[in-house]
Amino acid sequence: MSNMNRQFLLAARPQGMVKESDFDYAEAPKPVAGDGEFVVQTSHISLDPSMRGQMENRADYVAPLEIGDVMRAGGVGKVVESNHPDFAVGDMVGGTFGMQDYAVFNGSTPLRRYPPNTSAEQALGVLGGTGMTAYFGLLDIGEPKPGDVVVISGAAGATGSIAGQIARIKGCTVIGIAGSDAKCEWLTTELGFNFAINYKTQNVADALDKLCPDGINIYFDNVGGELLDTALERIATNARVVICGGISRYNATGDLAGPKNYFNLVFRRARMEGFIVLDYADQFPAAAEVMQGWINAGELQQGATVLNGFNQLPKALIALFEGVNTGKLMVKTN
Amino acid sequence: MSNMNRQFLLAARPQGMVKESDFDYAEAPKPVAGDGEFVVQTSHISLDPSMRGQMENRADYVAPLEIGDVMRAGGVGKVVESNHPDFAVGDMVGGTFGMQDYAVFNGSTPLRRYPPNTSAEQALGVLGGTGMTAYFGLLDIGEPKPGDVVVISGAAGATGSIAGQIARIKGCTVIGIAGSDAKCEWLTTELGFNFAINYKTQNVADALDKLCPDGINIYFDNVGGELLDTALERIATNARVVICGGISRYNATGDLAGPKNYFNLVFRRARMEGFIVLDYADQFPAAAEVMQGWINAGELQQGATVLNGFNQLPKALIALFEGVNTGKLMVKTN
Repeated sequence: MSNMNRQFLLAARPQGMVKESDFDYAEAPKPVAGDGEFVVQTSHISLDPSMRGQMENRADYVAPLEIGDVMRAGGVGKVVESNHPDFAVGDMVGGTFGMQDYAVFNGSTPLRRYPPNTSAEQALGVLGGTGMTAYFGLLDIGEPKPGDVVVISGAAGATGSIAGQIARIKGCTVIGIAGSDAKCEWLTTELGFNFAINYKTQNVADALDKLCPDGINIYFDNVGGELLDTALERIATNARVVICGGISRYNATGDLAGPKNYFNLVFRRARMEGFIVLDYADQFPAAAEVMQGWINAGELQQGATVLNGFNQLPKALIALFEGVNTGKLMVKTN
Repeated sequence: MSNMNRQFLLAARPQGMVKESDFDYAEAPKPVAGDGEFVVQTSHISLDPSMRGQMENRADYVAPLEIGDVMRAGGVGKVVESNHPDFAVGDMVGGTFGMQDYAVFNGSTPLRRYPPNTSAEQALGVLGGTGMTAYFGLLDIGEPKPGDVVVISGAAGATGSIAGQIARIKGCTVIGIAGSDAKCEWLTTELGFNFAINYKTQNVADALDKLCPDGINIYFDNVGGELLDTALERIATNARVVICGGISRYNATGDLAGPKNYFNLVFRRARMEGFIVLDYADQFPAAAEVMQGWINAGELQQGATVLNGFNQLPKALIALFEGVNTGKLMVKTN
């Protein structure tokens, strides 16, 4: 175990697409557990679209980062030192560890615990923040019913790929929109999506008209932009438009257009709703149990793209916005 | 009683703002009640923003009109001839009578019935379609709770003025946005709105920041456009954005912008939802009873602007979009 704590600090607030120069590499001493504290060593760090917003100086549902702060990031790792009665050396935990090798806690920050045989992919994916986002976004906001047509943008991403599988489990017809033929193939042959549309090579509007002529009951949106308008034009009566993310917006500059077809919410008596997964934190353990059951039954799969090496972290975040990942994107750091 | 049935027919699909030349005046013979039929003579015809959309060739929740059809319009009137067992001469009824003096029915079309002492203002307003729209839009979609801050655009219009009073009755703080000082004065001194903002002379954003620094719990939107964006920027956590109408859109040409601040639905875990009041038709009688109770208790007032003369109808529709009315706009035709 190294005595050095590698870190990436926020060096600059990004203008447009995030750049490597928005981060500074730093080395700090490995922290030591004080009275009642414990130290976690990260093994894998998660890359999530929401990290882009946290680099801005904006008061949202979480406090913004200051320049010079360790970049905020989710991670999974093991307790390597503990003076806390509830956390023992070797425990596998997940939480907001930041882009660093070690993080120190005193038990006041909520962490997730995993059975020791949990893979990092599952811990950060289906059983972590993105899995919970898919679960509560689809089930609580989307309210799927058997036979519903569910269309998912960013379908091959960490959240979309889980949301689509849950929709399939709930008896819906699932259509994924993704950015490559390989991703589309993965969605339909591995994850059991009914259909997939490659938005880079196909006309999404025409494809949807053909695949769901009676309209969309649930649009689970991770993208925003023109795709959202294309979907709003095709929502069915009483549709639910779940605003989970808007990755097309996060690195954009200037004034962003809104969904001009929003007024279809009236004509189709439909609802468009956002949510923050942290609001469901007290239900995470129960949801994880349900998801674990689906995994055990072979109904729910975790796809992941794992990059290797701590110094890959800034590049990996850029790669996320370029859509290189299939499923959950993470960096193996230790 | 005249033997002539004056009518306004749809002459042309409007381009941009509706014009008088979009209508043709016609005279038909007064219809005669056949077997099982009855004839209603309109006394007042309602002017509603939704009429603009019905002049277009567009499949929405109601069938579009054909060129040459009698213009569709809500009205109130009395049965003047009847061969139907359930409708007697003298009964006061409301329904979609069209822009004409007489309409004939056979009982299959749902009509509202009013106690004989009901005023036309109440029959077309609080107890008619606009009142029902305010009632179900605010209560069912908006879900007001005591202490909520409710902001209403088009607040001095037929629906907005009723919605605001219901919000007040439900214990909310009510802020109306309207287009003249006289309308604002009416809202606060007559209808019991807590505050009113004249969007033509005041900066709405600044006024809202001052009046509701903790944000908007319910935005009841009759207008769309920039006001919707101004409100979305200021919604509180778990806010409800009720899309009741979008009068700023109805006469606009070209591509209309969408609400660029829609993504606040995520940051504020909020919901934007549309509805069609006809979906609540089976609950109209119960709602009318509740509203009548509020009227009797002096808690709910009906404002109305009544123009005189059948030939005023096309001008009155244009005047509606120019905002001349305070409360319900109607034409007294007979």
